[in-house]
Amino acid sequence: MSSTFLDSLDTPAPLVDLDRVERNLQRVAAYAREHGLRWRPHTKTHKTEELGAMQVAAGASGVTVATLLEAEVMAAVSDDVLLAYPPVGARKLARLMALPSRVRLTVALDSLEVLEGLARAARDAGRTVGVLVEVDLGMRRVGLRSPDEALALARAAASTSGVAFRGLTFYAGHIRVPQAELPAVMQSQSDAVATFVDALESAGLPPEVVSGGSTPTLWQSHTVKGLTEIRPGLNVLNDRNAAVIGACDWTECAYSVLATVVSTAVPGQVVIDAGAKALVKEEGLAPGYGVLLDRPEVVVKNLSEEHGLLDVSGTTWRPRIGERVRVVPNHVCVSVPQHARLHVVRGDTHVATWEVAARGW
Amino acid sequence: MSSTFLDSLDTPAPLVDLDRVERNLQRVAAYAREHGLRWRPHTKTHKTEELGAMQVAAGASGVTVATLLEAEVMAAVSDDVLLAYPPVGARKLARLMALPSRVRLTVALDSLEVLEGLARAARDAGRTVGVLVEVDLGMRRVGLRSPDEALALARAAASTSGVAFRGLTFYAGHIRVPQAELPAVMQSQSDAVATFVDALESAGLPPEVVSGGSTPTLWQSHTVKGLTEIRPGLNVLNDRNAAVIGACDWTECAYSVLATVVSTAVPGQVVIDAGAKALVKEEGLAPGYGVLLDRPEVVVKNLSEEHGLLDVSGTTWRPRIGERVRVVPNHVCVSVPQHARLHVVRGDTHVATWEVAARGW
Repeated sequence: MSSTFLDSLDTPAPLVDLDRVERNLQRVAAYAREHGLRWRPHTKTHKTEELGAMQVAAGASGVTVATLLEAEVMAAVSDDVLLAYPPVGARKLARLMALPSRVRLTVALDSLEVLEGLARAARDAGRTVGVLVEVDLGMRRVGLRSPDEALALARAAASTSGVAFRGLTFYAGHIRVPQAELPAVMQSQSDAVATFVDALESAGLPPEVVSGGSTPTLWQSHTVKGLTEIRPGLNVLNDRNAAVIGACDWTECAYSVLATVVSTAVPGQVVIDAGAKALVKEEGLAPGYGVLLDRPEVVVKNLSEEHGLLDVSGTTWRPRIGERVRVVPNHVCVSVPQHARLHVVRGDTHVATWEVAARGW
Repeated sequence: MSSTFLDSLDTPAPLVDLDRVERNLQRVAAYAREHGLRWRPHTKTHKTEELGAMQVAAGASGVTVATLLEAEVMAAVSDDVLLAYPPVGARKLARLMALPSRVRLTVALDSLEVLEGLARAARDAGRTVGVLVEVDLGMRRVGLRSPDEALALARAAASTSGVAFRGLTFYAGHIRVPQAELPAVMQSQSDAVATFVDALESAGLPPEVVSGGSTPTLWQSHTVKGLTEIRPGLNVLNDRNAAVIGACDWTECAYSVLATVVSTAVPGQVVIDAGAKALVKEEGLAPGYGVLLDRPEVVVKNLSEEHGLLDVSGTTWRPRIGERVRVVPNHVCVSVPQHARLHVVRGDTHVATWEVAARGW
C-alpha cells in the first residue's frame, strides 16, 4: 500500500512534499533568471541543511539567514551568507567570525553601534565583512527611514576598516495584499527605493547590491527599479497565508502536518492531535489557523496546545476517530521549528528525513 | 558581579526563577492540602523532568500529561500518571503500555472507540488502565455534554476488562475571567458537575475521582462540590495571561525570555531579539504579546519571527543597543517548547540547566 509510510508515523508529524518543493524551486529560479535578479533565499523558513543545499543547487547565489545557528548550518552548503539581522554582543560576533573563512559574509544593519561592533570583530578576526544598510519602506520594524540617515551609515561603512559597504537592503513585510493589488503597491515601493539609491549615487556611493523581495511581493520584484537581489523565504514550502493572497497556488503548498482525529464528541466539530504546539496559534490572513491540504474547505477554527478544532459545519465529511488528515498551517516558518525533523515524501512514499538543524539560536 | 551569568548567555534565552517556582509550588500545595484536594499538576507547561520531580516532592499526588513523550519523561519521577488526552492509534497505545509497570495509569477519554482501543491494548499488555470519562462544561473542545452520554461511557468502562472506571474529568479552559468574577462562574460550574455526578451515583457508579481545575480557576477550585483533584499546569511558572486575570501576582511570574536590544531605528520603538520563534505570537488576554518582567508597562506590541517590537511610547526608558531585558510572554506553555533547555536562576545566579525533555511528541 502506498500509504504505509504515513500510516506508520506517530502524529503530529511534519511532512514535506518533495515534488512540490522542486517545482517551487524551479519556478523562483526561473523567475530570477528571467529578470536578471540574484536569488538569495531566506533559509529561516526551513532551517534544514538539505533544503539549503537544494536551493544552492537550483541556482541560488547565496543564502540569507536570521540567526547565528542558521548561519552555522547554512555555511555548510553555501559560500555566500547574508546575515539579515544585526549581530549584537560578543558571543554573536564571535560566532559570526568563526564561520569558515571561505564564506563571503554580508550583514544587514541599521545603526552605527552595530556597524562599529561588527567592524571591530572583523578586524580582530582578520576578515572583511560586507555591509548592507537596512532601510525601512514602511514596515516600521527596523531600518532607516530617510535617505540622509542611510547615506550617513553607508559613509561610515565605506570608511571603516573591517567592513565593506555593499549596498542597501529592505524587507517590505507589511505588504501582504492579493496579487491583483500588488502592481500599484510595488510602484510606490520602487519610488521609495529610488530615493535611497539616488542619495547614495549622488554621494559617490552607488550600491552594488539592492536586496529586497518577500514571498508576498515575489512575482512583482522585477518592477522595483534598481533591485538586484530577492530573498524570498517561505515560498519554498508555502503556507495558507501565501495561498490566501495568491503568492502561491494551493498545489504549491509543500508543507503540512499529519494529524489524527481523536474526538468527535462535539457536533459539527472534529478534533485532531495537531494543536498550537505543532501548528502554532498565529493569526493569519483568513480566519482560523490552517486548513486541510486535501479539503481546503475545512478550517482549523481554533487551537489548544495539543488540540486542533476542525469546523466541519460546511462539509458532509464526517471522519471517524483514527482517520488521518494533513493540515497546512497559516505560517510555515513558525510551524517548522516546532519539530525536530521533517519527513520528506513523494506522494505517500517516504524519501528522506531532514533534521531541522537550525532550530534554536 | 552578580549578573555575569546572564551577561554570558546568548540571546534569546529562557530563564526560570527558582525562588519563584518554589513559592508557586508551596502555594498550590498548601491550597490543595487546606481544601482536601489532590494536586495532579499538568506537566505540559514545563516538559522538564526536574520540575516534575519538584512537583512530586512538594506534594503532588501524581502528574498529568497530554502526550506520550510527556508520559515517558514524567514516568521517571512519578508512579501515577494521568494521560489527559485520548490515545488513538497503535503507536500511541504501544508507547502507553510500554510505560513502567510500577506506573499507575489513568486515561481521560470521551468515546467508545478510544475506550475499546485502550482496553484491547491494556489486556494485551496485561495491565489495567484507569478511565476518567471526559465531560464538557462549556469549552466545546472535547468531552461529553450530557449526563446520559457520560453515564453510557462510564458503564462501558466499568464493564470492559483491561480498564477500570475511576470517575470524571473536565477542563474548563474557556473560563478566563478576573478573580472577582470567578465565584459566580464557579457556582454554575459546580452545578454542572453535580448533574454528572448525580447521574453516575444514581446508576450505582459513583466517581472515585472528579478531576478539574485550571490555573485561571485554581484558587476557587474548592467551591466546586464533589471535586477531588486539581490539575493546574501553568501556575508553576505563570505568565502574562495569568497575571492579567489575577490568577497570579506579577511577582509569581517565574518564566521569562532574556533578550538583547538590537535596533532603535524607529522612534518610540525598541527592537529585541526575542521574536515569535522565542515567545510565540499568540493572542492573549491583553493587547500585545508579552511585557518586560522588570518594566511591565513596556508591552511587546508586535512580533516577527526573530524581532520583538517594544512599545516605549509610554515610558521615558530608552535603552541602548546591546542592553538586555527579560520578557514575560502571554502564554508560557507554548514559549517553553521553543527552547531546548531552560536556564534556572536564583536572582541573577545560575543554579541549573534543565532540558525540555518532553518537547516534541
